[in-house]
Amino acid sequence: MINTLPSYVCGHWRSATGDTSIVRDAATGDVITRVSAEPLDYDGILDYARNVGGSALRPLTFVERASMLKALAAHLSAKIDDFTEVSLRTGATRRDSAVDIDGGVGVLFVYASKGLKELPDEHVLCDGEFEFVGKSDSFGVQHIMTPLLGASVQINAFNFPVWGFLEKFAPAFLAGVPSVVKPARQTAYLTEMVVREIVASELVPEGALQLVCAAPDGLLDSLTGQDVLGVTGSHATATALRNHPSVIGRGVRFSAEADSLNSSVLGADVSVNSPEFDIFVRALVKEMTQKAGQKCTAIRRAFVPRALIDEVEQAATGRLSAAIVGDPRDGTVTMGPLVSQGQRDDVRRAVAKLANAGRLVFGSIDPVMGQFSSTADLERGAYLAPVLLRFDDAAVATAHSIEAFGPVASLLPYDDLGDAISNVARGEGSLVASVVTADADIASAAVAGLAPWHGRLLVVNRDNAVDSTGHGAAIPHAVHGGPGRAGGGEELGGLRSLPRYLQRTAVQTGPGFVDRIWRR
Amino acid sequence: MINTLPSYVCGHWRSATGDTSIVRDAATGDVITRVSAEPLDYDGILDYARNVGGSALRPLTFVERASMLKALAAHLSAKIDDFTEVSLRTGATRRDSAVDIDGGVGVLFVYASKGLKELPDEHVLCDGEFEFVGKSDSFGVQHIMTPLLGASVQINAFNFPVWGFLEKFAPAFLAGVPSVVKPARQTAYLTEMVVREIVASELVPEGALQLVCAAPDGLLDSLTGQDVLGVTGSHATATALRNHPSVIGRGVRFSAEADSLNSSVLGADVSVNSPEFDIFVRALVKEMTQKAGQKCTAIRRAFVPRALIDEVEQAATGRLSAAIVGDPRDGTVTMGPLVSQGQRDDVRRAVAKLANAGRLVFGSIDPVMGQFSSTADLERGAYLAPVLLRFDDAAVATAHSIEAFGPVASLLPYDDLGDAISNVARGEGSLVASVVTADADIASAAVAGLAPWHGRLLVVNRDNAVDSTGHGAAIPHAVHGGPGRAGGGEELGGLRSLPRYLQRTAVQTGPGFVDRIWRR
Repeated sequence: MINTLPSYVCGHWRSATGDTSIVRDAATGDVITRVSAEPLDYDGILDYARNVGGSALRPLTFVERASMLKALAAHLSAKIDDFTEVSLRTGATRRDSAVDIDGGVGVLFVYASKGLKELPDEHVLCDGEFEFVGKSDSFGVQHIMTPLLGASVQINAFNFPVWGFLEKFAPAFLAGVPSVVKPARQTAYLTEMVVREIVASELVPEGALQLVCAAPDGLLDSLTGQDVLGVTGSHATATALRNHPSVIGRGVRFSAEADSLNSSVLGADVSVNSPEFDIFVRALVKEMTQKAGQKCTAIRRAFVPRALIDEVEQAATGRLSAAIVGDPRDGTVTMGPLVSQGQRDDVRRAVAKLANAGRLVFGSIDPVMGQFSSTADLERGAYLAPVLLRFDDAAVATAHSIEAFGPVASLLPYDDLGDAISNVARGEGSLVASVVTADADIASAAVAGLAPWHGRLLVVNRDNAVDSTGHGAAIPHAVHGGPGRAGGGEELGGLRSLPRYLQRTAVQTGPGFVDRIWRR
Repeated sequence: MINTLPSYVCGHWRSATGDTSIVRDAATGDVITRVSAEPLDYDGILDYARNVGGSALRPLTFVERASMLKALAAHLSAKIDDFTEVSLRTGATRRDSAVDIDGGVGVLFVYASKGLKELPDEHVLCDGEFEFVGKSDSFGVQHIMTPLLGASVQINAFNFPVWGFLEKFAPAFLAGVPSVVKPARQTAYLTEMVVREIVASELVPEGALQLVCAAPDGLLDSLTGQDVLGVTGSHATATALRNHPSVIGRGVRFSAEADSLNSSVLGADVSVNSPEFDIFVRALVKEMTQKAGQKCTAIRRAFVPRALIDEVEQAATGRLSAAIVGDPRDGTVTMGPLVSQGQRDDVRRAVAKLANAGRLVFGSIDPVMGQFSSTADLERGAYLAPVLLRFDDAAVATAHSIEAFGPVASLLPYDDLGDAISNVARGEGSLVASVVTADADIASAAVAGLAPWHGRLLVVNRDNAVDSTGHGAAIPHAVHGGPGRAGGGEELGGLRSLPRYLQRTAVQTGPGFVDRIWRR
């Protein structure tokens, strides 16, 4: 008897009843759990968040909430090994799991630390100084920020079941706003495990965190301008949610972080023997194989000076040949399966479109072709070996519009940097791009050209590659999000993400009165 | 022969052809002009903004653009009298026109001054300092802000034809983003007059400002994630525009500033003989009569301690009785007509609903009832005398949901401050609220309770009333906008409004490399 995944709502673990969907182990196809296909009482859940959670969080100061986050981070830190064992079932290798699990706990640590160091032991955050208006000495304005009275509703993607919820939870909690977490069905059991640990720890106030393992129908219906809706997922999902009547009609704060066709650009200063050549190729292959390429930040388009594209293809295919694809429980495996056979089939369809417009230079859309470990159950697991494509004409539209959300990337040549930048921009906005160069002029021109299209840029070369956190990693210190196709949202960036959960208010009054108002 | 209002697009003044709508003098009903009812080639206009305007603005530094704004402000300053003469035709008195015209030029001066003082003589704005990540000394992150490559499209309301476009133009221009201005038909001729003066001055680069006096159909169709859409108007208009496929599907940056049911709260510390009593009543009457109450920030709901409500009613009706409604060209007139008879009829319908749920204590929905100047042509002008309503049960839903966008406000009693705050919140988010009190505890509790629901709060009493800029004035130093029903947007607030026109990008690289990248 397989249990149905419970939800944690309104102060209780609630078992699901009614119709369910099966969730399988990515590598073996074994049934892990079932997730309810019926909705919950979302009005009740949101009221509980606002009345119980928000009411418990708002009387705390920013520093008090930061201290709680710190204790929570330390507590979860001790459970990372347990979480990692379960994470293997999602198809993630141990290394992959570190990005999700250690990375998620790391977000809590960073937000705790920044909160303790940079935020006041107060209930209100001052934004700037008191400013006298005009020539007066009795009147001016002080901007303040106070917690919204609603809930932060998260609609998450399957690929980071731990980091994906903690990176939204941490700033909301620090700001004083309770969270309602809706994980993606495929990996919800790992989110549930972490939430269970948080609830049992009693380290955060009741109501500050609720977990919804159920159909989301109706979850958005009663959102208002005091609520925040944060969505991570495909462009299609983000668009559908943005189109909800509550979001459109009631001023719900909405933020989307959507998959995008991220790029890496190899500088024309680089030769085959430069350290930057290796840096570029290693990063490309890492982004293709880590999490089996199921990262919204993964490199999809690699722009290479035309004179070097054969060498890059050769070096990349050499490295890809060394990848061992198989069951993540097998220690020799370097790349696991995709999260589900359904996801694999989606990726194969996208690869077929790409291959039709360009050409395959490594791998195959056939799921049984490739160098698989003997532990790979190709019948029941969601396997797909890495796929590298090449477009000799970098202007082909398909290369800039079709995203295969798996171990898939395309090589594209360029003649001058301006062309490369124009073609990167044809992705219509991305989360991240890398520029691999040791030439400051090239870096400068690339940053100027690429910045308006990206939330994050990595400029990497021999001097910083060792310490670099890499192309794909959304670190808590740096903004994560991007314009246009990437959703137009902004997450992380240290305390830059707090204002999403706060109302900024200009308080106009006298200079003597102002301190007495909120420094009680 | 009445001329049709031309548009200034793609470097030329373009006369309209085809169907037109008539625009009339608010006081006399005389035909002033016609506005085209047909759309323009918006793809061409947006391309021109991006390619000609943006390309001219982006090579300038922030300081260079601020200097241009300063010169422009000085130039327009000398034309204020000319603009004011024409403004009388919109129904605005000379005092009303100062809010719009002097206020609009004032925004340019403030942005110029803040730009010169606080922004760098560079092309890129650094957001925070370089931050080392982890324990590394060769790698970290610097956040930067660069101008978006698109256009700022303004869809404006009729009530502030000058300020309404300049308050959006100034931060966009300073940020390096060109503007496309679509004024409301009723008062577009005044916007056109100011744009004509700006174009003739040659003080801003060609393409930085275009004016669309035409039907907006299709204007939003080709917007992308590099464009910004700013809307000022009714909640219904804002909702309709937010629902556009480009806004939903392409991540267009969208900001709405919508009418809201703004409040003023009289503190329980105030007695009939306190200076604060007069301050409260004067502000209420001013907000009802200035611009004939056609301000998105006007007080619609006045909350008064139950024990004082009769006295407030008496004092307010006394002051309202002294108002003289008539043609703004008549120097004795203190309140002009509404902008059009259509607008007047809308207001009358809203008042009828309010009167049905509460009761009229001053004025009438009958347009010929009231103390009118002999200059008021009640047949052809859009006249309506001020209307004050009273709700003895402050919980009546109508009082918190029906907005009469004219010289109309409601008195509502409260028993304790918590009740007043709860009822203010039933407006579901407003641009501004005032708290009139000399008691710091009351001010403190009111600010804490009201802040999450407002973008601006005015805390006023005998010590600061003289210098106060008032309830209704959206000054450039303070944030203007509000959550929920007020649209969820944020404008002004000094340089706080620049990021809307800039892309924030986390640049991850080495500490030595970072300065060489954009400090060329």
